[in-house]
This record gives sequence, C-alpha cells and structure tokens, in this order.
Amino acid sequence: MPMLSSRILTLAQPSLRHHARPLFARRLYSSYTNSSSDNLAKQVPYTSESHPHLQRDSRFKKLTSEDIHYFKSVLPPNSVLEADGVNYTEEDLLPYNQDWFKTYRGNSKVVLKPRTVTEVSDILKYCNNEGLAVVPQGGNTSVCGASVPVFDEIVINTSNMNKIRSFDALSGVVTCDAGCILENLDDYLAERNYMVPLDLGAKGCCQIGGNISTNAGGIRFLRYGSLRGNVLGLEAVLPDGTILDNMSTLRKDNTGYDLKQLLIGAEGTLGMVTGVSLLTPRRLKVINAVLFGLNSFDQVQETFVKAKDKLNEILSAFEFWDEPSLYYGQHLTSKDYRVPLEKKYPFYVLVETRGSHEEHDRQKLEAFIEDLFDQGQIGDGVIAQDVAQFNNLWSIRDSLGESWGGGMPMYKYDLGLPVPVLYKIVENLRERLQHHGVLGPNGPAKHVTGFGHIGDGNLHLGIFAERYDDKLASLIEPYVFEFVEKYNGSVTAEHGLGIKNSTFIGYSKSPAMVNLMRSMKSELDPKGIMNPYKVL
Amino acid sequence: MPMLSSRILTLAQPSLRHHARPLFARRLYSSYTNSSSDNLAKQVPYTSESHPHLQRDSRFKKLTSEDIHYFKSVLPPNSVLEADGVNYTEEDLLPYNQDWFKTYRGNSKVVLKPRTVTEVSDILKYCNNEGLAVVPQGGNTSVCGASVPVFDEIVINTSNMNKIRSFDALSGVVTCDAGCILENLDDYLAERNYMVPLDLGAKGCCQIGGNISTNAGGIRFLRYGSLRGNVLGLEAVLPDGTILDNMSTLRKDNTGYDLKQLLIGAEGTLGMVTGVSLLTPRRLKVINAVLFGLNSFDQVQETFVKAKDKLNEILSAFEFWDEPSLYYGQHLTSKDYRVPLEKKYPFYVLVETRGSHEEHDRQKLEAFIEDLFDQGQIGDGVIAQDVAQFNNLWSIRDSLGESWGGGMPMYKYDLGLPVPVLYKIVENLRERLQHHGVLGPNGPAKHVTGFGHIGDGNLHLGIFAERYDDKLASLIEPYVFEFVEKYNGSVTAEHGLGIKNSTFIGYSKSPAMVNLMRSMKSELDPKGIMNPYKVL
Repeated sequence: MPMLSSRILTLAQPSLRHHARPLFARRLYSSYTNSSSDNLAKQVPYTSESHPHLQRDSRFKKLTSEDIHYFKSVLPPNSVLEADGVNYTEEDLLPYNQDWFKTYRGNSKVVLKPRTVTEVSDILKYCNNEGLAVVPQGGNTSVCGASVPVFDEIVINTSNMNKIRSFDALSGVVTCDAGCILENLDDYLAERNYMVPLDLGAKGCCQIGGNISTNAGGIRFLRYGSLRGNVLGLEAVLPDGTILDNMSTLRKDNTGYDLKQLLIGAEGTLGMVTGVSLLTPRRLKVINAVLFGLNSFDQVQETFVKAKDKLNEILSAFEFWDEPSLYYGQHLTSKDYRVPLEKKYPFYVLVETRGSHEEHDRQKLEAFIEDLFDQGQIGDGVIAQDVAQFNNLWSIRDSLGESWGGGMPMYKYDLGLPVPVLYKIVENLRERLQHHGVLGPNGPAKHVTGFGHIGDGNLHLGIFAERYDDKLASLIEPYVFEFVEKYNGSVTAEHGLGIKNSTFIGYSKSPAMVNLMRSMKSELDPKGIMNPYKVL
Repeated sequence: MPMLSSRILTLAQPSLRHHARPLFARRLYSSYTNSSSDNLAKQVPYTSESHPHLQRDSRFKKLTSEDIHYFKSVLPPNSVLEADGVNYTEEDLLPYNQDWFKTYRGNSKVVLKPRTVTEVSDILKYCNNEGLAVVPQGGNTSVCGASVPVFDEIVINTSNMNKIRSFDALSGVVTCDAGCILENLDDYLAERNYMVPLDLGAKGCCQIGGNISTNAGGIRFLRYGSLRGNVLGLEAVLPDGTILDNMSTLRKDNTGYDLKQLLIGAEGTLGMVTGVSLLTPRRLKVINAVLFGLNSFDQVQETFVKAKDKLNEILSAFEFWDEPSLYYGQHLTSKDYRVPLEKKYPFYVLVETRGSHEEHDRQKLEAFIEDLFDQGQIGDGVIAQDVAQFNNLWSIRDSLGESWGGGMPMYKYDLGLPVPVLYKIVENLRERLQHHGVLGPNGPAKHVTGFGHIGDGNLHLGIFAERYDDKLASLIEPYVFEFVEKYNGSVTAEHGLGIKNSTFIGYSKSPAMVNLMRSMKSELDPKGIMNPYKVL
C-alpha cells in the first residue's frame, strides 16, 4: 500500500497521488464462527453456579413428557431436540445452552425449531398456559447472555425459519423470516444491487430476528442509522400466542402507535419476532478504505470532524482503536493481517467511503487526506488499493472484537458516551488501576483497552487480565458505570442488557422509565415466561 | 431556465450543457400561514354539530373557577387564557379551537401556556386527578383534527416552550423544547452548518413537539428517513404527571425498551412531549433541482429508479404531481410562480439533489438527465440555475399542499401504498366517479387529483368538488380504504389518525394490533384524559 507518511511528502505532491480502485468484493467474516459448539462443557460452569444470586423462578413449571409430546404434535419431525440421552445428549444441546463468550451456560433439556409463525404461536400459547419459561434464540451470538437459558427454560430457536419472502426492486424492501442469517440476506440482496443496512462481526452466524431483538448497531450505523429506523414491519408472537402481523412494506404508516418499536430491542422479553420487513439501500459500487496512525484522541476527533466535512455523503464508517487493543487483536485471534504502517501509533482510525462514482470519491478522499496532512492532524496513513488490501484493513478492525472472545480473562463494557469523553474513561480507569497497583506486567490487570465507533459515540472498553480478581473488579465497578451516569451515557450502547447488564439499567434510565418498562412487561407478558432473568 | 427539450437536443450535446449553480438559500415558507386565526368563526360549525356521532365523554368533569384558580397558581402571569369575556373572548381562543383546514372547531374555554416541564407536570397531574380532559397542542397545523379540542377539553399549548437547550457541533445533536418552531430550529442549525432532517410545508408554524407527536414525514424523508429514526431522546409527561426524562443525546442506547417510540406518533394520546433531542445532519452546500414533464406514471417510476441509480447518495427529494393537482395549485393559492415548460404534461416530477461538491453533483445530474433523454423517458425538463429559479420550482410543489386549504370543498386522503399501485387509485377512482356520472364540469366532483412523495410510497389524493355530496361521498368511501386494504397500504401515511381517520384504522391494522394499542392506552392513560375522541 502506498504510504502517506508526513515524513516524506503530503498528498498534495502529484508524485504521491494514488488512484484508489473501486472494490466490488465484500469483506469476509468466515473466521468469526460461533465457537460455542466447541466441546468446552467442562470449562464453563452453569450460570446457576457462577451467578448464585440468580434464583430459578418457582412459578415456572418443570418440563414433563406431556409437554414434549405436545411439542412433537405441533412441530414437524426432527424439530424437537430433547436431551433424553437417546436421540440427543446434553452435549448436543450445548451450542444452544452456552453463549459465544463462554460466560453463561444454561441447562435446558429441550430445543424447539419451528418453521412457521403458526408453530411459534402454538408453542407460546401452550407454554403460557402451562407456565413454562422460554428463550427465543437466533444465531446465539449475544455478548450479554441474552440468547441462552439461565436455568431450564425451553429454547425456541429460529434457525429453521430462514426463508426470504419477497423483495421489491423498486423500493428495496425485503421481507423475510426471523431466522435468516445476516450474511445470507446480504448475499441475496447483493445479487439485486441492494445491501443490508447493518454490518457487524457476527454477520456469518447472527440472524436478522436476533439483530432486531437486540436493535443491533455495528459499523454501518454511521451511514444508515439505527436498525430501528430501517425496520418497516414485523411479524411477532406475543406470549399468549397472539400473532401480531405488522409486516408492512410501507415507508410511511402513521396509523396508531408503532407497536413494533416495543419489540425491537426488547431482547425477546415481550414477544418473539418471527418475520421482518426491512428497507434496504442501494449497494454502492465504489468503496474505499483508509487507515491512519494518530498521536492523540484529540486527533481522532479532529479527523472525524474533517471526515464529516470533506467526505460527507460518501462517509460510510469511522472506526478507531488504541494500540493495546491492536496488540490483543494480533495475539488472541486467528486473524492474519499486516498493519501497513511503518511505526506504531497510540491511535488508529479506519475510514471507509461508499459512493457511486469512482473519480468523484477519489477526489473527495484526496481532498480529505490532503487537508489532514496540511493541518498536521495525522501521523501516517495508507489507502487500500485493491480488494486484498481493503480486506486486510478491515481484518485489523475485526480482530479487535474477536479478541474479546479469545479466551483471556477480561472485563468487557459496551458504553455509549458523548464523543469528547469517549476515551476519557479509558484514561481515567488506567490511571485508577495503576494508582492502586493492579495494572501492569504483574497484573492482575494487563491492559485497559478501547476501540469503537466514533460517529456513534460507542466505546468498547476491555480490561484484559491474567485472572478474575475481586479487588480489581471492585475498582472497575461501579466506577465505570458512575462515569457513564455522570455523562448521561449508556451502560450498553449496542449489545443490550441480557443477563450481564440488567442490574445496571439504573445508571442509564430513571426509576420512572424503569417502572414504565416493568408495566409494559407485565402488560404483555403477565406470567413472565419470555426470556426471564434478563433485561428488567 | 434552459430547456432540455427532447425536441431540440439532448444534454449530451456540449452546446446545451449548462452549469448548475450551488444554491445556498433555503426556500421560503412564509406564505404558508396558519389561517385558523382568520375570523371565520361563523363559517366553521362546532365539531359537536358537524360530527354528531361524537359524544362528549360524561366521565370528564366540566371546567370550574377552582380549576382556573389552580392553573393560575402554578403558571406564570398571562399563561392562562380563559374565555371569560373580560380578559379573553371566545374569538381570542378561536386559533386554538379551530384547525387549519377549518374542518373542526372545538369549544374549549381555556388555553394553558406552560413554560417548563414542571408546569406541564403540575397541570396534567391536576387534570388527571380531577378528570379534566386535555389537548396537547403545538403549532396547530394538524390536517386530521388531532390538535384541536372536540368539545371543551383544556388546550395545553407549547408555544411558550421554545428554547433551544444545547447543541453539539461534533455530533450534530440538538436538544430543545417541544414548542420550537421547525423553521426557527432550522435557522439556528443553519448558522452552525447543520439542518433539521425534516422539511414540510407548515415549517413556518409547526412545532417540533407536534412533528414528533405526529411522526411527521415530509420531503426529506427519502434522504434522512423517518423522524422516529432521528429522535435520540424525549422528555415527556405522562397523564399522571410523571416526568419521563429520556433526553439522551446518544446515538446508541440499548438499555431496555425504547419507551419514547410509544410517544412518537401517538398524537398526544399517551402523554405530552415537552423536550426533544434530535440528531441533525450536516447542511449540504450544493443544492440542485430539476423539473421534468412526463407522459405517464410508468415514466415517473422509471425516472425514480434512474434517480436512485444515477444520483444515489446525493438524491434528496423526488416529488411528483399530476396535471389537475397543478391546476388547483395555480388557482387556489397565493403562490406566484411560473411553470417553465413549453407545454403541459400529464405528470411532473421535481428531483432535488444535495451534496458537498458542486462539480461532482453537476456531473451526476447531467449523467442522470442524459440517460433519461437517451431512453426517451422524459418529455421535457429544466434545471434551476439560481436561487430564484430553485424557489420557483419548489413553489410549484408547495402550492399543491396549500391548495388543499384553499377553501374549495374537497375529499382529502393521505395514503401509503406500494409505488406500482400508487397512482392506480387515482385512475380507478376517476373511472368510478365518471361511470356514476358524478365527475366532470357538471360535478359534484370536479377533479380527482394526486401528488406526493414517490420514494416514500405516499400519495396525497384529493377530490375537488363544487359541494359536499352524499352520493359522491358514498362512492369514494369506503372504496378508497378498501383499495388501501387490498394492497396492505396505510390509510394515513404521514398525517396521522386524529379525528378524521381514527375510524379507518381497521383498514390498515389487524384487530390484534388495535387491541394491543388499546391496552397501551389504558395502561398509560387509564382515565383517558389525553386528547380524547382521537386515534383509537
């Protein structure tokens, strides 16, 4: 890749001008696999043991053979996976019981795999009548424990609901089942010159129904906004079996309260999403990516402002990370990439553009880079010249998220904060842990790291450690949450509450808000069978 | 303006190439005034008389002098407008009682104008305890009767809550009171190189709180999506006086159910919006507009597809109208404009682009127009060359909406439909009325007209008539709604339900959906005091 080093010449020099090539290939996510299928049962304790404060709700009935008999009567053959030791073992059910980060492990004895909304309705109606708790589950890529049972809840998995129902090439509206894998949906749209307005590391396994239930964010948020804003319609089943058919394909529909919004981001606690209608944007043919090395977080912010000014309508992603994040990305993952800068920087920024005109985009990008160099805002930088280089740059970014599942003990946070203080929490926490002598080569904390989506005010804060340690934990929490509260931030920007964050909701939402949420929950799920022990 | 007539030469000919100039001025809305302040009391009957099927809910208490005394005790001087015949007359309260289309006229005896959320809370808590019904009111520009009382409901008007609270130039997030007038808010943002992602004819009078309560659409929807998707936070008061402080400025916040979504588009029936946090986009400096004359609705659709392909990231509006709509725009409004095409066309399309680079945008626009001419998709066209011409083109479009308030008897519909059948309802209805001998020079119907936002699948269907007529009405309704239902459309795409459309909700929403909406209403407003007789 051509180096744009300030040590040599700025881009204003014609000799260094380079021609960014359009990139038609999408980047690959194949290395992000759901590792919960690994045989690690012995290593992950049951959630009931690791989280003894969680108690099974005695209102819920325990599964009986009559229940299994009923499920088999309403579902097609091979859709009821019962760990009876004959057809299926507990080992077989592990991928459904255990989360991707291997933090939580439920003990469900049955997984149901319906194919239609009617089957989901039959299941929920029965479970509601019988008082059987359930967990709606898509690709099981939740990073806050939202998609696995805590105790013996019945798993209703949407993997068999994976049909694309319709696509309209004029409007770009696609309708599909909740169980469509995000990448498959995007492949389908790619053939039609459209794209999913959502992109995240788990693309190869996560399902659109789960994305919607989490109101997933990701790296296209900056350009296309929240998933919430792109969902035109939902089909969902309430706990009592009522089918809410709101599969509208209309962009505008102001007929009453927008009930689907309640289900978006509810993490399966109010009902189960079975179908989706999504507005998708045109697939832009000209894609470029630039990597910068920067010397301070101030420079990161200035580069962002400049990107909004100069790249404007073609800016499609603006990601940043710090040097220690990169270290773990390089050492804890299977990603194979090269960081194409001559030296190390405290900060890195990956800027992506997507537009419709090769020459125009190149000119805008050059003006942007030129301006940055003129103002001394960047240390060094490279532009991807082909698909391989483009994928290489994104592999760096992808490795950061993957390192969180790399098996090293760590404390993980997904924070929403105003951009000016986004990195301040990393610095403050580093200082605090150093001051208390728990950060450094002698541990227990090794590094405090931060990366994320600048444009969305979203920081992924990770404290890598050599072991879990009570003193260390007490220095991190509630300190991190108090910082978030002070700046009116979010204790979970895009990951959701699940089990992990549910007790921290008070740092981001007032008692009045939480009370109203509880009212909604009681109203829609009076018996509390939907994904219990989570969110509220 | 230069003519791009296919009769002469296509744009591919260098001699006809023209240079679109960047336009920095915003278009003006000053001629769109809230005409409800005209002295037309005698002409508009009370809603209770014109809509005898609406009965006053006997649960609601009638206003007493004690109530007035209480309101005066919690509000600043001159904030309680009581029609006592001394300080204020019924005439003074007419602008608050009567809607913009002069279809509805309530008989409220008091208008409250709080300045703070605490005052709103005090008012609602009292009204809820006393069983006094209220109408939250912003700029009172609703076109479905949502913002005026039906009987004697107390008007809570937000005009005195008009402060901008904060603005962050890095993220573009603005927070403000609900009573900020949309145009004022946009002026404020313009000085900071940002813009409101919402634009509609009533901009000069409507308030952001009302826009949010209606989930208003408008002409920027195509580019910036729904208002719902751009609202980051809300401050609202529930009927019992509870203040919901959710004034987040975060783009991402997945901490529990997104309660603010319930209030967005609820038309003031669940609570009262008092403050808003809004994500605003950069103000793009290069603006162009093109007007085309087209021969068929198929050409309109083809032009839209071409615009998405060729203009892509700079496309900011795509409006269409038919010849009869233009006729009424020219004859029923005060708009002064020239249609700069040499002959008449059955259809017209106004395409607007907003981008950041003059030369790039011009090239994209030229390629778009060239392609249209090459394929014979347009009859004729002009590009605005300066601010005056740009404003002239938008004046044509603005006159269409204004003609609906032009005083001529008419049947008005705001429909959401799949684009391919968007104009079919106009054609079908024309045929139907002709067949029954009620359309033409002898009336009672004069013209069936259609215009709207192609990109959003939003048609404004208007049947202009010489008088209101029972036979005519029975031929229009439920025919129009049955058409909408058949194509899974919306009986109100962007205007809302209000009084006018509330009985038609069943054509767009299933009984299960409506039942759940009713549950939400009962849960949040058990005494039903918030904007009664509307929505549900």
